[in-house]
Amino acid sequence: MYVIHVHVQAKPEFVEEFRAATVENARNSVNEPGVVRFDVYQQEDDPTRFVLVEVYKSPDDHPKHRETAHYLTWRDTVTDMMAAARTAVRYNNIFPQDSDWK
Amino acid sequence: MYVIHVHVQAKPEFVEEFRAATVENARNSVNEPGVVRFDVYQQEDDPTRFVLVEVYKSPDDHPKHRETAHYLTWRDTVTDMMAAARTAVRYNNIFPQDSDWK
Repeated sequence: MYVIHVHVQAKPEFVEEFRAATVENARNSVNEPGVVRFDVYQQEDDPTRFVLVEVYKSPDDHPKHRETAHYLTWRDTVTDMMAAARTAVRYNNIFPQDSDWK
Repeated sequence: MYVIHVHVQAKPEFVEEFRAATVENARNSVNEPGVVRFDVYQQEDDPTRFVLVEVYKSPDDHPKHRETAHYLTWRDTVTDMMAAARTAVRYNNIFPQDSDWK
């Protein structure tokens, strides 16, 4: 598995709209053949901050995600909702081992 | 679900030992009744950095985790392996909705 954590801060007035658009993107993303998980979390002590935990079967599945209609819609929809550029951190999976993922 | 991301930087000479101790802790943690996931990832561009994605059924399940023998062993084992104090960020779950978690 190949994991990307995307950190986003929404403008306060767009938190609910950002959340709705991001859930819609996640709902579609989990149906991609290369996507294992696409979790969305909202920071407890600062609800303007979100993290997307994107788990791909391989690094090659990430660029495929970025070509999908739902990703492109999300990207364009949230552009003006963000307080700052989003950041991404890439990880290799350690546990559970790949064969134990569900 | 209640999610905690724990960020840890290991001293370079302890990366493999830290990784092994953390996998052992994760293997035991996933058997706790209040733990839904306990993933361990290693940062691609800096293998000394790890993140633990801990998913609990409720906020109350986190202090229970911290009372387990495997947590206490891990905590004491890794104390001198860390390059800096670890940090934790707490999140509320947005997607998938709690009933869809597995």
